[in-house]
Amino acid sequence: MNTEKIPDIIIGRLPIYLRALQRMAEAGNHTTSSKELGERVGISAAQIRKDISQFGEFGKQGSGYRISYLIEKLSEILKVDRIWDVVVVGAGDMGHALANYPGFINRGFQIVMVFDNDPAKIGQKIGKFIIQDAAEMVEKIRQAGIQIAMLTAPASAAQEVTNQLVKAGVRAILNYAPISLNVPENVKVQHIDPATHLQKMTYYL
Amino acid sequence: MNTEKIPDIIIGRLPIYLRALQRMAEAGNHTTSSKELGERVGISAAQIRKDISQFGEFGKQGSGYRISYLIEKLSEILKVDRIWDVVVVGAGDMGHALANYPGFINRGFQIVMVFDNDPAKIGQKIGKFIIQDAAEMVEKIRQAGIQIAMLTAPASAAQEVTNQLVKAGVRAILNYAPISLNVPENVKVQHIDPATHLQKMTYYL
Repeated sequence: MNTEKIPDIIIGRLPIYLRALQRMAEAGNHTTSSKELGERVGISAAQIRKDISQFGEFGKQGSGYRISYLIEKLSEILKVDRIWDVVVVGAGDMGHALANYPGFINRGFQIVMVFDNDPAKIGQKIGKFIIQDAAEMVEKIRQAGIQIAMLTAPASAAQEVTNQLVKAGVRAILNYAPISLNVPENVKVQHIDPATHLQKMTYYL
Repeated sequence: MNTEKIPDIIIGRLPIYLRALQRMAEAGNHTTSSKELGERVGISAAQIRKDISQFGEFGKQGSGYRISYLIEKLSEILKVDRIWDVVVVGAGDMGHALANYPGFINRGFQIVMVFDNDPAKIGQKIGKFIIQDAAEMVEKIRQAGIQIAMLTAPASAAQEVTNQLVKAGVRAILNYAPISLNVPENVKVQHIDPATHLQKMTYYL
């Protein structure tokens, strides 16, 4: 299996496949086809076969994919066959929503720290976490060796917080602020933006 | 311009291009290339040229794309050259975050109503909205002719709320609940899920 040169665009689709497969497994299904999976995720069967075949031979001609095996393999490829510690920066509405989000279970992630710079929030509880002082963020993240952050700071503060996260050793940032973040080449950013998702549907209205 | 048979996967990438172009415009840029745009969004220049050429000839060989023109055309194609009214269902943390989200401006959307079924929340303010009784939701949405909803209800209630939204005439749902929704063929669902976005980055760690 040579995963050295898999295009980003294919890697970006694998989590979508993985989520659909996990839901099929939860629903009690054991096998699926590229056609069925494609209908679930809105991607052609041919594309799915091509994407998955980049990593080896996971299905059998005619009998489709064994769901549990494909989940195992995709989880390995995406490195979510383990649990990653994640910090949340910003304890506003979105920080609260994330701290209480039930959707991280079995997906490879757990929130372990929440930071904010508002003295009125520091020390308060958010879900099961105590909000910690953002002034101590760099040191605490570095000590814990955490590589992933979810950034819910306001747009005006987001770049400065990002700089600190990078300094702390964070290499993957999920950005909820409606701005572009500047990061070094070795840091990944994913932007979560409801407007972009809505725009994927208006075409069909 | 024949947009009848554009694959969903291409339509799904256009909002990503549009967001990047709008940010370039805000930064004062006037022209761009498929190479530059590709580096911004993590998609190959060849793929971008191919995607955009589905809709006509928007760029000139050698001189690239005029940003304002491409923004205008992509907005037209995606039908976000107008403002769509949107309802939020669920006035929890995520509902609050959406009601206060500053990122809808110039993206084609405005929230106009927020609903919840919790008597303690109904009548309270959320951002600039009064939380309305979910029992009146179907009638109010139908009367207003609203086609788009953001669903932040808990997973246990999400399918039932979805059924009501469909009954009310909603045809596009942005789903924040960590479950799959069953909808008729003519209704689109987009799922916003932080775990999936995080999984797009762990591969690189």
